Amino acid sequence: MSQMADGLRDDLKRRAQRYGEVLAAEGIAFALVQQTTDKYYLSGTVQQGFLAVAPGLDPLLFCRKGMDRAQEETPWQVRPLDRPKDLPELLRQSGFPSEGPIGCEADVLPMQLWQQMTRLFPDRALVDGGMALRQVRQVKSPFELGEMRLAAKIWRGMMDETARQIRPGLDDHLLSIAVDAHGRHLGGQGLMRTRGFNFEYFAPHTLAGPPGAVPAHFDGPTGGLGPHAAIGQGSAHVAIEPGMPILADFGVGCRGYVADGTRTFCLGELPPLLARAAAVAVDILQEAEETLRAGAPISEFFRQAVAHAEAEGLGEHFMGYGRDRVRFLGHGIGLELDELPVLTPNAQGTFEAGMVVAIEPKFVFPGVGAVGVEDSFVVRNGSPEVLTDYPRGPILLGRKG
Amino acid sequence: MSQMADGLRDDLKRRAQRYGEVLAAEGIAFALVQQTTDKYYLSGTVQQGFLAVAPGLDPLLFCRKGMDRAQEETPWQVRPLDRPKDLPELLRQSGFPSEGPIGCEADVLPMQLWQQMTRLFPDRALVDGGMALRQVRQVKSPFELGEMRLAAKIWRGMMDETARQIRPGLDDHLLSIAVDAHGRHLGGQGLMRTRGFNFEYFAPHTLAGPPGAVPAHFDGPTGGLGPHAAIGQGSAHVAIEPGMPILADFGVGCRGYVADGTRTFCLGELPPLLARAAAVAVDILQEAEETLRAGAPISEFFRQAVAHAEAEGLGEHFMGYGRDRVRFLGHGIGLELDELPVLTPNAQGTFEAGMVVAIEPKFVFPGVGAVGVEDSFVVRNGSPEVLTDYPRGPILLGRKG
Repeated sequence: MSQMADGLRDDLKRRAQRYGEVLAAEGIAFALVQQTTDKYYLSGTVQQGFLAVAPGLDPLLFCRKGMDRAQEETPWQVRPLDRPKDLPELLRQSGFPSEGPIGCEADVLPMQLWQQMTRLFPDRALVDGGMALRQVRQVKSPFELGEMRLAAKIWRGMMDETARQIRPGLDDHLLSIAVDAHGRHLGGQGLMRTRGFNFEYFAPHTLAGPPGAVPAHFDGPTGGLGPHAAIGQGSAHVAIEPGMPILADFGVGCRGYVADGTRTFCLGELPPLLARAAAVAVDILQEAEETLRAGAPISEFFRQAVAHAEAEGLGEHFMGYGRDRVRFLGHGIGLELDELPVLTPNAQGTFEAGMVVAIEPKFVFPGVGAVGVEDSFVVRNGSPEVLTDYPRGPILLGRKG
Repeated sequence: MSQMADGLRDDLKRRAQRYGEVLAAEGIAFALVQQTTDKYYLSGTVQQGFLAVAPGLDPLLFCRKGMDRAQEETPWQVRPLDRPKDLPELLRQSGFPSEGPIGCEADVLPMQLWQQMTRLFPDRALVDGGMALRQVRQVKSPFELGEMRLAAKIWRGMMDETARQIRPGLDDHLLSIAVDAHGRHLGGQGLMRTRGFNFEYFAPHTLAGPPGAVPAHFDGPTGGLGPHAAIGQGSAHVAIEPGMPILADFGVGCRGYVADGTRTFCLGELPPLLARAAAVAVDILQEAEETLRAGAPISEFFRQAVAHAEAEGLGEHFMGYGRDRVRFLGHGIGLELDELPVLTPNAQGTFEAGMVVAIEPKFVFPGVGAVGVEDSFVVRNGSPEVLTDYPRGPILLGRKG
């Protein structure tokens, strides 16, 4: 376990124990965790195989490939697994319950792999073990928050780079490339992990002018036209001009953990309507920040933000335009960009200390562009910690005087 | 359809017609295509929703979001879909068969979304429509091959950049960052799409020295230690030294289509064993290239390559080391990095003209590094077209004289 960071071992034990408790409460005998991110969360390794987690037992990794490195990376026992069909007998030998439902990640496991599990365990009920794990994962440990502060520091460096790069005539796609490379130089990992089906993120969204108002195919208020219909998101080779809104909306991952945030930039002054919308977005974020603490109902944030936008006469432009508006104000982040909780009007429950959420009020003006702001917050008993601490803007560049 | 490239409209019609024929042959009434890449392949747009494809009918896109841009991007009719539960009635109204099995992508659709389809269509059999589409997709049209040649041109530029960057003391992770940014400057799209569950690709693999011999969690012969256990692949901050093998293994996507290839670099001379293995890899690739044509049995390539490696006494190092060896020699590429056919010893059938495959003989030496070569080929009736046309190396840099 030479690669295991200080504090990670104890953290992994607490995570597995907590997941086991939730499994027990749901009457699940044990879970077989297959998705890379879930496996990493519970074991510290991403190596191929099945991680078995049962209430009251130490997890056990049945490893298909990368056995040696898995043993270095996880505190749990690792056993070789040559053929998936050996799994039931190996589980039995290892003391995992031979009766009761088995939990698998129904929200991410493809149907064919679910069917494989059905064939492996014909006498067992297969139930969803994914939602329970997503719920455990939404409250971050102090160790995880430390990792997320590192990611947020890189994000701030990428915003600095955005401000440095923007100049008249710059192609917003070149801006994305520069910001991307700068992030990797600061320790960014490249790909950010996502969980949702079809949720893709190609590169930092630096959206200048009208194509920035075009909706994309993932569940977000903005997305942009992108460089080609096959990509359908991100910058679209727009030459930056004074007065053009530039929505710099990106996350970055480091050591697996992501930070996510948005700023609106402009060379000179924004057109009056967009300037007002950008200011309202900052007000909405500020209002959300003041409300965000342990115990606050998750469902209230979207309603409150919509009421604010509507009071300003900007309801039709809020979180997308017209039919393409999305009905949430923010989302959890962690090892994935799209974690729980999601700040929808129908969300159940209240915030807990240790949840980390990105709150992203944005306004979309077809034919003109998008403006808005987004910060990543750690929920606490008192006022939240802002991970993406950076002037909220809009950030007006190149003004004289 | 202002964004539709010349030739794409007719190509889309042929693709949908072909898929409809295969569905009919399998007794499937119609398919509901949900995965972004499959949807793009059949419609030209990635916008959210369900693409209905039936034998003898024009496809129809039931669009959840991005309706306006979907109408610009696809030749097919686009109808708004506010709630998924409206889908059965809308399909009926649009003339889609009200009896017979419905095909969904069982290899990628998560169990929960499959269950949603079961609830929407309680009286219909749901069957896999994904394999049929993957089989259609494996034979590329002239239009698609044109797109793939563009991606391959960018790949060649990235290999040039690799050669330019390598110098004593350079961190192989900085090499990855430079190659990545260069690829994007040449038109690379950032993220490359993959299909397999848990198949992740973070950034170009530029693997120097011993960490390059460490297996990764996806199904490939190499992968590398990576910068952190959470990532588990790619470069690992190794300072490049003379005599160290540097495996430059990366793909790149452009307009959705990918090219994939590998070269071995070294400052000065490789150690004798690795030099021999690198030369054998080139021989194996050459042998595969000479055999690769329409009608050749797909299953023969891996066997032939293993026999070659074993005859050289290198069998234990071929396509991974020991327990972590993988049992294939290459894989299809297209809109995804992991398409059909896969060159396993158990593969069924023969090659067809228009298939595009990346063939990747590699050798792994624990504690030393990895060497190998990989090219992307278009299968033809005669000898194949090499998309990644570039000196096969190993490419020895900085030698005097």
